[in-house]
Amino acid sequence: MGAKAERTRGAILDASFALFAKKGFKQVTMKDVCEVTNMSRGGLYSHFSGTDQLFEALLERITGEDTFDIENEIDKGTSATDILNSSLSRMKKEIGHPEESLSIAIYEYAQMCGFERIAKLNHRSEEKWEKLIEYGIERGEFNDVNVEEVVSIILYSYQGIRMWSRIMPIKKQTSDHIIDHIKKQLIP
Amino acid sequence: MGAKAERTRGAILDASFALFAKKGFKQVTMKDVCEVTNMSRGGLYSHFSGTDQLFEALLERITGEDTFDIENEIDKGTSATDILNSSLSRMKKEIGHPEESLSIAIYEYAQMCGFERIAKLNHRSEEKWEKLIEYGIERGEFNDVNVEEVVSIILYSYQGIRMWSRIMPIKKQTSDHIIDHIKKQLIP
Repeated sequence: MGAKAERTRGAILDASFALFAKKGFKQVTMKDVCEVTNMSRGGLYSHFSGTDQLFEALLERITGEDTFDIENEIDKGTSATDILNSSLSRMKKEIGHPEESLSIAIYEYAQMCGFERIAKLNHRSEEKWEKLIEYGIERGEFNDVNVEEVVSIILYSYQGIRMWSRIMPIKKQTSDHIIDHIKKQLIP
Repeated sequence: MGAKAERTRGAILDASFALFAKKGFKQVTMKDVCEVTNMSRGGLYSHFSGTDQLFEALLERITGEDTFDIENEIDKGTSATDILNSSLSRMKKEIGHPEESLSIAIYEYAQMCGFERIAKLNHRSEEKWEKLIEYGIERGEFNDVNVEEVVSIILYSYQGIRMWSRIMPIKKQTSDHIIDHIKKQLIP
């Protein structure tokens, strides 16, 4: 792909993120994407064959960046506590701004397109957290916890509050409690 | 309401539970309810004005029974550990049988009908768990935990895994980890 095509592709992904975050997956059409990107139908279709392919590319980008961030920090030897704190801050920010989260769109996409893709994404999140926790234990920064247990609590309490934050107001206190609880498990 | 009308109402609620659990809220019509209950349109509408009212009655029944169970056991002086264990067994059973859970239907209902009703339901769940944990602490059976924190972890990890169990297979191990984690917080 040429540099220009790459940039256009990036701009389409940026614009459609906001669209999927706001409307979920089902209600977004290629026509909507044309409107927000100011592209012609032909122009858009030369990059993506439909909202499925567009959403897949978006998922790939998000989880890729996210995993890269943590692995990159581990490779640089950043302290596990710092990596944990910045991951939890990102989680907290997302809980506080549900309108910027893809959670509903991902959920709708999985309902429509089968679970394999989502199971794979979920597996990557598990691995990412497992890697961070094992790294923290090795460095003597984290408690010697049951890694899988703590990962399950992190992922599902986060998914739960993220999903519910889309349909009802969540007290700031509640997300603080969840973040505190995760920290308490890991940091002595 | 006469005894016969009460029975009919109960039968409609039983039959529609299965329907909402399977199809969510949006896709269930009064015609579907007529079919599963073998009732005429007129007969059904003399009990419920629409799927909204029907679903409200169902929510009322479920949360009422659930709250009553825990409060009733506390009044009887049942040990907090026994009440916790049976509540967690029920949770585990629900996670293992997502097709029998109303979680998706509740979610869809909240998206369509506004959050007040769901926020109220959520508040009742919070109160129920708070009451149980405080009771366990008072009796010296439970650790002296931050009650709100543990309730947040219980409710949201449960919601998270329940929602995701509808769209992808959850390893038995994962739900075991969540249940174990909750027990470990409370039982010394």
